Amino acid sequence: MLNGERLIARPLRWGMVGGGRLGQVGYKHRSGALRDNTAYQLVAAAFDIDPQRGRSFGVNLGVSEERLYDNYQAMFAAEAERADGLEVVSIATPNGTHYEITKAALNAGLHVICEKPLFFTSAEVVEIRELARAKNRIVGVTYGFSGHPLLMQMRAMVTSGLLGDIRIVDLQYTHGFNATDAVDKISDAQKWRVDPKVAGPSFVLGDLSTHTFYMSQLIMPHMKIRELLCDRQSFIPSRAPLEDNARVLMHYENGAVGTLWASSVNAGCMDSQKIRIVGSRASIEWTDSRPSELRYEVQGEPRQILDRGMSYLDDICNAEERMGALHTEGLAESWANIYLRIARAIDATSRGDTSLLETLVYPGIEAGLDGVRWIENCVRSADQGAVWVDFE
Amino acid sequence: MLNGERLIARPLRWGMVGGGRLGQVGYKHRSGALRDNTAYQLVAAAFDIDPQRGRSFGVNLGVSEERLYDNYQAMFAAEAERADGLEVVSIATPNGTHYEITKAALNAGLHVICEKPLFFTSAEVVEIRELARAKNRIVGVTYGFSGHPLLMQMRAMVTSGLLGDIRIVDLQYTHGFNATDAVDKISDAQKWRVDPKVAGPSFVLGDLSTHTFYMSQLIMPHMKIRELLCDRQSFIPSRAPLEDNARVLMHYENGAVGTLWASSVNAGCMDSQKIRIVGSRASIEWTDSRPSELRYEVQGEPRQILDRGMSYLDDICNAEERMGALHTEGLAESWANIYLRIARAIDATSRGDTSLLETLVYPGIEAGLDGVRWIENCVRSADQGAVWVDFE
Amino acid sequence: MLNGERLIARPLRWGMVGGGRLGQVGYKHRSGALRDNTAYQLVAAAFDIDPQRGRSFGVNLGVSEERLYDNYQAMFAAEAERADGLEVVSIATPNGTHYEITKAALNAGLHVICEKPLFFTSAEVVEIRELARAKNRIVGVTYGFSGHPLLMQMRAMVTSGLLGDIRIVDLQYTHGFNATDAVDKISDAQKWRVDPKVAGPSFVLGDLSTHTFYMSQLIMPHMKIRELLCDRQSFIPSRAPLEDNARVLMHYENGAVGTLWASSVNAGCMDSQKIRIVGSRASIEWTDSRPSELRYEVQGEPRQILDRGMSYLDDICNAEERMGALHTEGLAESWANIYLRIARAIDATSRGDTSLLETLVYPGIEAGLDGVRWIENCVRSADQGAVWVDFE
Amino acid sequence: MLNGERLIARPLRWGMVGGGRLGQVGYKHRSGALRDNTAYQLVAAAFDIDPQRGRSFGVNLGVSEERLYDNYQAMFAAEAERADGLEVVSIATPNGTHYEITKAALNAGLHVICEKPLFFTSAEVVEIRELARAKNRIVGVTYGFSGHPLLMQMRAMVTSGLLGDIRIVDLQYTHGFNATDAVDKISDAQKWRVDPKVAGPSFVLGDLSTHTFYMSQLIMPHMKIRELLCDRQSFIPSRAPLEDNARVLMHYENGAVGTLWASSVNAGCMDSQKIRIVGSRASIEWTDSRPSELRYEVQGEPRQILDRGMSYLDDICNAEERMGALHTEGLAESWANIYLRIARAIDATSRGDTSLLETLVYPGIEAGLDGVRWIENCVRSADQGAVWVDFE
Repeated sequence: MLNGERLIARPLRWGMVGGGRLGQVGYKHRSGALRDNTAYQLVAAAFDIDPQRGRSFGVNLGVSEERLYDNYQAMFAAEAERADGLEVVSIATPNGTHYEITKAALNAGLHVICEKPLFFTSAEVVEIRELARAKNRIVGVTYGFSGHPLLMQMRAMVTSGLLGDIRIVDLQYTHGFNATDAVDKISDAQKWRVDPKVAGPSFVLGDLSTHTFYMSQLIMPHMKIRELLCDRQSFIPSRAPLEDNARVLMHYENGAVGTLWASSVNAGCMDSQKIRIVGSRASIEWTDSRPSELRYEVQGEPRQILDRGMSYLDDICNAEERMGALHTEGLAESWANIYLRIARAIDATSRGDTSLLETLVYPGIEAGLDGVRWIENCVRSADQGAVWVDFE
Repeated sequence: MLNGERLIARPLRWGMVGGGRLGQVGYKHRSGALRDNTAYQLVAAAFDIDPQRGRSFGVNLGVSEERLYDNYQAMFAAEAERADGLEVVSIATPNGTHYEITKAALNAGLHVICEKPLFFTSAEVVEIRELARAKNRIVGVTYGFSGHPLLMQMRAMVTSGLLGDIRIVDLQYTHGFNATDAVDKISDAQKWRVDPKVAGPSFVLGDLSTHTFYMSQLIMPHMKIRELLCDRQSFIPSRAPLEDNARVLMHYENGAVGTLWASSVNAGCMDSQKIRIVGSRASIEWTDSRPSELRYEVQGEPRQILDRGMSYLDDICNAEERMGALHTEGLAESWANIYLRIARAIDATSRGDTSLLETLVYPGIEAGLDGVRWIENCVRSADQGAVWVDFE
Repeated sequence: MLNGERLIARPLRWGMVGGGRLGQVGYKHRSGALRDNTAYQLVAAAFDIDPQRGRSFGVNLGVSEERLYDNYQAMFAAEAERADGLEVVSIATPNGTHYEITKAALNAGLHVICEKPLFFTSAEVVEIRELARAKNRIVGVTYGFSGHPLLMQMRAMVTSGLLGDIRIVDLQYTHGFNATDAVDKISDAQKWRVDPKVAGPSFVLGDLSTHTFYMSQLIMPHMKIRELLCDRQSFIPSRAPLEDNARVLMHYENGAVGTLWASSVNAGCMDSQKIRIVGSRASIEWTDSRPSELRYEVQGEPRQILDRGMSYLDDICNAEERMGALHTEGLAESWANIYLRIARAIDATSRGDTSLLETLVYPGIEAGLDGVRWIENCVRSADQGAVWVDFE
Repeated sequence: MLNGERLIARPLRWGMVGGGRLGQVGYKHRSGALRDNTAYQLVAAAFDIDPQRGRSFGVNLGVSEERLYDNYQAMFAAEAERADGLEVVSIATPNGTHYEITKAALNAGLHVICEKPLFFTSAEVVEIRELARAKNRIVGVTYGFSGHPLLMQMRAMVTSGLLGDIRIVDLQYTHGFNATDAVDKISDAQKWRVDPKVAGPSFVLGDLSTHTFYMSQLIMPHMKIRELLCDRQSFIPSRAPLEDNARVLMHYENGAVGTLWASSVNAGCMDSQKIRIVGSRASIEWTDSRPSELRYEVQGEPRQILDRGMSYLDDICNAEERMGALHTEGLAESWANIYLRIARAIDATSRGDTSLLETLVYPGIEAGLDGVRWIENCVRSADQGAVWVDFE
């Protein structure tokens, strides 16, 4: 149970690149990082491509004006000069800038927490992985939905064999907010997402399905994809070649099969993320829209609903419980758990606590690499005509 | 609104082949056919492969003992001699016998109502279609779930353009009752379903997905599949080559995409059938487990739930309303509607009412042909390694 | 499991008074009585206050024209002369006529199945109970919702002590179809319901809550009300003194408390009937709008949903299973079970099978008496200003 | 839309009395107060009746050790000496201490935020109200569930007349965690709740229903109770005279009727809080367990579900939106909104901004008085034998 008491000796000095007033994502980072003021404190930022707006925004958040910078280069340089300078920076900018900012941050000696998808290519991720190792720094990736406590319950149930052999994996992350191109025309945040130069090789595969794919790996750490097939479409033609809808079929090494549906044109859908894992004995199912409930269905027995916060849940789940039974948690707690896991990884790195690092479950650069590879494999299949490709 | 009053001049004299005491399906046929005693009356049967058991059963249903026959051959022969003989026969036997019994029935001058999947091959269906035309007889197919009134509401909403252009079709018919092979060993009804000699080229594709595929055609009569890909598995190895799980991807001629999941190893699943149709403006979604509710989701507006029996529904839907608002209907009403539609087709055929036949929506031999073709295309794709095949 | 095979030697010769073309309730009676043609056959009727319309209706249902009568008096007289005359008659007329028609039917030697509420006063019921005993005839009451199989499951769970001591009973039967007085003005079926001369001393208490009260007794046969308090309103003033909304508080003899909400002005409500029984260990909850699901909630354990048709249910529940797991049942099956229970009671009476009569659970005249007493106690409390009154 | 930017000039210097490591409620206060670090900063506390434990806890939260006090008296005295001393204090101690701590805090010149129920008697609240006025200080009350944004949507819908005339109010706050007395024996937090000397004149009426009652007032500010009746029980006898279950009936001045069910013995219930408001045209319904969904049911139209974060919602609702559509919020956001409303009231008081104070909706001392009066009226009715009493 988390109650705000510190899990690391002192809060990390934390800053942001991007995440300013106009977008929605910055607030999620801050809600996560600053949840209890015992893991991070916000000390510096380059919030906005418009420096004046970013400065005004930062002041309103309580950041000292002299530590609100025009851009990340200026911030990394100036903070490196301070005794109380930044230790870790979060990157919440369009995809196309992640690589260069991460590289600069690591070279400035900072730990990095970056939005997904991490970079455009897995080669870039591998290169940065080497750099991070050399610098002994953590690169965390904000698969922000993956911190819901019941996902850890699902992991415990799967890995303990409660479901039997895993046979079928059914994944979904869809919504309908891009059913028309109205948003593409008015929203800066949407415009870059359908521009390959900024977004990279995919839209919904990167923007949505990397979350869901990571969550599936979190729940089923032993399951490896052998081959997959991806069929993607651009129902709004101006988005081509980037897809606004995609369906992936997967064959896992153990003989299981899977499917993932990612879409931003699923008109009217508000139950966006769903995960169903079917085993030979039982299934579990979870949806992001009711994150405090887990369905557990044993064939031939009454269906069960497990509720967050209850003492019958696994310790690994209740370790991240915050509000208690009957009291709903939402996306903010999920982000808080992600940020806390990464803070513990950073702290362990600083302390040289390799045993903790070996057991700690958090979205690090391997999870970032997996996400980029996921996209690469999907795009490779789709671009060959939705054919089966070996998962590389 | 249906209240039992006759829609045809007098009830048809009806009999059954199969559907005896040991199986579950016969009661569904009788619940459908005999709902109001104004469309059919049960006058003869060859209920069982065990004649004595079939006779005992028929007596308990109130059929005259002299019209309870040892087999269909005897029944067709004897009934042909009677002035009050059979007019229409339902076939509720294992798949492998459908073709020969249908042929014999047509040759005996009977209308036929047959279980799905109709026959093993589309060539057989085409042959029988010719025979039925020559004999001026109806062959109806009991896609028994397709009579739920809200499906007609969905048809009205789709065809009137309320959803915009159809983009995505998501279909599911799954359960978990075959998650282990326990049932295969003890149940005669299950044994033949996984024996290719009796079941034909598929298990769940034929047994489950033909229902769902027909329902999708009913709702979207204008949508044609251009190509599909089917990936099927036998999680219980003894079922191979017949599948207990299958996933189909579809490309429609209008650019829409679809998917269908059929499974009998979806452990613990009790929400078996789901249909979601996504248009450019709105989506509709229905599940067989709550058949009196239809979700209607317009992007950017509050989600809506339409309830069976309400006056705001389309006339085509309320024409088959029976119990009234607030009062649940279930699978029996769906079967009753199917049987009533077929009775009206038979009656129109007898009366030479071609104009009614042209507008009446009912599962006739074309629907049976579509179902067999569906299986053939799926199996052809699956057997080539889950590749895209043109829909033939 | 019911599959249509006879449970009594031959179908009872059955007729109706009322239940004609214009109302909705007649079809429910026929759907129940004629479900499998092995419990009842419809041989005569006086369907309508308009004899011509009633005759036309009956012909359309397949009743012989000579047995379609102008009124119940004519029917009882003529049928008494026939060797194949009526044995049992259902009364589906406005409340104010139940008493006289029941009396006439019993005096004509018929068994009776009557709509609820049975009569206006408990004194009338007691008088008729004596007559029925003297004539050795059954008077059944169509609490038509009470035949859902899961109610018997609830009874089994309660009486076996699975819930612990019963502490709280929460009952509801509400809808919103009378939220305005529009229906009062146009519908004959609604007009009489708010006319005390025809409806009796209550509207929703009689029309709705007698169902729910009977269901609570069915589930908890050992629970007796010690005192109650009823607060009733007429939100549409023209309905006064009859209520369109009522709330009842109950104190049971064992110390449990209960509440019942009956309303026809619960605007927009489509989940009309709910029953929750709270014990010291666990609760069960059921709603008529999802009649195939039963919630079972053990404090401190995962919530459970029990599904109709599953083998883990009690035998008493599965004895009335018809469609099988995964296959929804609705209100028609509930009526069919009620009619079948009453048919068995009639048959046992005819055979003098007192041991069956002692164990058979069916809504007989005692259940009818309980319903009328329920109304009397509620009205007595309400008319004194919503005060506590001893349950008499 | 809230994104963390300051709504007041600088964060208030905030402290706590109670809310230490062993209880659950303190974390909710801190999650609310410290959400964005722009409304409050935690500078001092007397967290625990065990000073050493409280000090250790405070250090772990990042509070300076010298500002962690042994008790509230010491804190108020010492902080008054500091230039950067406390401005506002939250009281999260057992009920019986609220009055004296609030009085001391006001006398020390502090604003106060106090747990519900505020005090034991309304006379005490009236006295403190005078003191607060004299000192020009705010007393806020943490009805922590009342900050869910959709409650403001409900208020907008009710006050705009969208539902028509309000007729029926149905309120519920129940759970089953006290179904047995196991918790009473082991939990300090539960022990005092059933001890009248510490808890005051009620258990669940104060602990649970004051939340729900305040929420009903928030939604329907114009609705006044004319009379009520309360029936309460102690199903665990050792809790008597304090109730673990209560049912209240209400008559409103406009002719509407209401009911409220409060219980901690509703075994297995996890959908704890429900509010349904029935108008002459439509109803709205909300449950705390799915706080991002609002049901809106217009009689005769499809049922609607309104989702938090959507642009069709009222501005008053979206003004407190944080996470955005599709992204769940939970109880923490509700607390954050409550704390932010109170911070704005404190800031307006300091600035002498009476016009803001007149329009700002927040749970101040009048809301606290209403809650205590609610309990007094309920207890007065219950102790007279569950009779109707005028609401005073």
